[in-house]
Amino acid sequence: MSSHSWFDIPRGSHFSLANIPFGIISSTSSTTPHVAIAIGNHALDLAIFAANNGFSALSTIQPHQAVFSQPTLNAFATLGRPIHAVVRKYIQSVFVKDTPYPEVLKTNSSLQKQAIFPLKEVQTHLPFKIGDYTDFYAGLNHAYNVGVLFRGPANALQPNYKHLPVGYHGRASSVVVSGTPIRRPNGQILENPAAEQKLPSLSPCRKLDIELELGAFVCRANRMGEPVPISKAQDSLFGVVLMNDWSARDVQAWEYVPLGPFNAKNFGTSISAWVVLADALEPFLVKGLENDTQILPYLQEKNAESVYDIKLQVDLKTSSGQSSTICRTSSRNLLWSFPQMLTHHSITGCPLQVGDLLGSGTISGLEPSERGSLLEQTANGKVSIKLSGEEERRFLEDGDEVTITGVCGSDDGALVGFGDCVGIIEPALKL
Amino acid sequence: MSSHSWFDIPRGSHFSLANIPFGIISSTSSTTPHVAIAIGNHALDLAIFAANNGFSALSTIQPHQAVFSQPTLNAFATLGRPIHAVVRKYIQSVFVKDTPYPEVLKTNSSLQKQAIFPLKEVQTHLPFKIGDYTDFYAGLNHAYNVGVLFRGPANALQPNYKHLPVGYHGRASSVVVSGTPIRRPNGQILENPAAEQKLPSLSPCRKLDIELELGAFVCRANRMGEPVPISKAQDSLFGVVLMNDWSARDVQAWEYVPLGPFNAKNFGTSISAWVVLADALEPFLVKGLENDTQILPYLQEKNAESVYDIKLQVDLKTSSGQSSTICRTSSRNLLWSFPQMLTHHSITGCPLQVGDLLGSGTISGLEPSERGSLLEQTANGKVSIKLSGEEERRFLEDGDEVTITGVCGSDDGALVGFGDCVGIIEPALKL
Repeated sequence: MSSHSWFDIPRGSHFSLANIPFGIISSTSSTTPHVAIAIGNHALDLAIFAANNGFSALSTIQPHQAVFSQPTLNAFATLGRPIHAVVRKYIQSVFVKDTPYPEVLKTNSSLQKQAIFPLKEVQTHLPFKIGDYTDFYAGLNHAYNVGVLFRGPANALQPNYKHLPVGYHGRASSVVVSGTPIRRPNGQILENPAAEQKLPSLSPCRKLDIELELGAFVCRANRMGEPVPISKAQDSLFGVVLMNDWSARDVQAWEYVPLGPFNAKNFGTSISAWVVLADALEPFLVKGLENDTQILPYLQEKNAESVYDIKLQVDLKTSSGQSSTICRTSSRNLLWSFPQMLTHHSITGCPLQVGDLLGSGTISGLEPSERGSLLEQTANGKVSIKLSGEEERRFLEDGDEVTITGVCGSDDGALVGFGDCVGIIEPALKL
Repeated sequence: MSSHSWFDIPRGSHFSLANIPFGIISSTSSTTPHVAIAIGNHALDLAIFAANNGFSALSTIQPHQAVFSQPTLNAFATLGRPIHAVVRKYIQSVFVKDTPYPEVLKTNSSLQKQAIFPLKEVQTHLPFKIGDYTDFYAGLNHAYNVGVLFRGPANALQPNYKHLPVGYHGRASSVVVSGTPIRRPNGQILENPAAEQKLPSLSPCRKLDIELELGAFVCRANRMGEPVPISKAQDSLFGVVLMNDWSARDVQAWEYVPLGPFNAKNFGTSISAWVVLADALEPFLVKGLENDTQILPYLQEKNAESVYDIKLQVDLKTSSGQSSTICRTSSRNLLWSFPQMLTHHSITGCPLQVGDLLGSGTISGLEPSERGSLLEQTANGKVSIKLSGEEERRFLEDGDEVTITGVCGSDDGALVGFGDCVGIIEPALKL
């Protein structure tokens, strides 16, 4: 498909003509953050594009063009999925080789210069103003592995696990865009959990971990008291990002009873900068993990193919500069789909808002190399994993840089990818 | 003190000259929500007041007057506690009998007519745009009572309880202002928890409960990665509201392992409309409950008097029209203060933002009549409590109206009160 564009889209690019993900950028020449799309190694600033008659051939969007000048995607998302689809298709038609609208961009070198920026030269920003962030636990293999570590194989999964998408409210203010450094948190930890007397200390986290997840953004609000039926849940989902839900395992172990993780999770959650629209991901819907439980009708989906088959990879680069792939898996390893999570979330009447973020929970496959957290890979630090250059890790060290990548489809120039989600660990603040 | 105002402030009013709480109002004659203060049975619209030279004698505030035209208190709160103090004192001086500024309001009957509204005629709105809402569990007696119910007296409190303010991330989007009806949620419940096979059903909640809490609003942001030391935590606290954290106990019992309460808490949290400034509450600081544990230095306060002695009361009016007081206690029944909660919250570097809401957790005294939830009062529905008119309750029924009131000080015309926090239970949606 890339050969079908007049624009240079390198083979292997995550941002092919089949994708058209949305994000927020600024640059030295255009310092106000605007809505943009990514294509190949470039970004098209849609505010500049719109101001220069870029959407002149798309009457549907003309009354709404102000949304592209916003510093977040919230206003664009609010327009609804039919509009997102129209805009994406229109942009595809502008970039296709035989575009019916050559004057818009193909032959308009002045607008190309004004509105198109190399990705390397733009600053990406958090794509949404996030109202609430909810993190689910839909990665069955992860939940099982963690359950085995803490409760043994017989009780690994709690009785509710296969009946409802277990989740908890997360911290919205500490969700950051890919590239933001993550400072190792200080927190209360119990150095000697086996001791009779439980005496915690305040310490830099010693069990700093990753969680490989997907995040989905909500694009339709429901009123308080009015659940979103499963048949309508897809309409509420704007698109998907990669997510690393950094976790302080030692803080978590001490604090989490009886109300769940709190400080262990509120110091940072990284997401990829480019949001891949639900429409772009539709060809990659597959059946998720088999649920051998009879689930209640409100969670039953008409279409069994409701989770995405996204190839996911986690790379760890240490301060020595050596990089190692520590996990390869697929997001099909989920027991619950985003529509199921969203419907369950709202069944009580909880009002979801545009810009809310739903995390999938950690995604792990069955094999050791497919585990999406170090907690699982090292059995909570009991063993170490080998990295390139004779290094090894139980948990993250200062200077470690973690990169998550995700991509769908085969490399024939029509990849639908997420770019990456990166974070480097900075030393803890000295208190 | 009320006898010292030229304005009619009825004896017994929660909104005496010693108070001056802030909120957001609109009225039929001024339909745009504005910042206001409550005084006696009236509200003063500060946007109208400012537009008519109300602040002409207060040069400090003049560059900032636009904050009063906002539909939330966020911008005003951002100005910081010294400015809140100056504005409150100035308004007190405008209303005092021998005001040095009679021309501002006392002798300006035109402005009185324009800017002062009977409370009965105004609509109050959610006072803040809430970024994140965190609910703590600082009510020791409540935590103990609930622990006894579920784990017995020997293990009632978890080992961490006296070392850190246990808390969890709540749902910001469903925090509503007093008076908003609460629809009984539907949710997954386990009708027969004792059965071998755990088969949940989707049902209207049968164990709908209240939680008597205080809420505190944050007025100063900290940057990600930079904790707020305990010595500075008071500067980050704007003021306090009454809070009813409605809870679906049957939903909670089934869903809460291992990540904590989720749907059981996300269908509604009511707060009182008027935020009492931290300054107004300072005279009512007392020592909280004794902590017999050596707490870590980062949580140690210089001043042992750090929780508020607010008289709290919960009334339940059934659809028969009969009202019964079901709880009387004091907010001194907390093990942790708001500064301790805030500092612990940020110790990992979690960024707090202006408008964040911190809940205290349910407040209960030692006596049965002092318990702040029906869960405790009825031993999770095992016994019923008697109401007036030979009615009784285990949990809330449709049509029940719950009113929380809170007030400090003695009734010599200088009460500092919160008004009330009211919610009526509507029947569940038929699914």
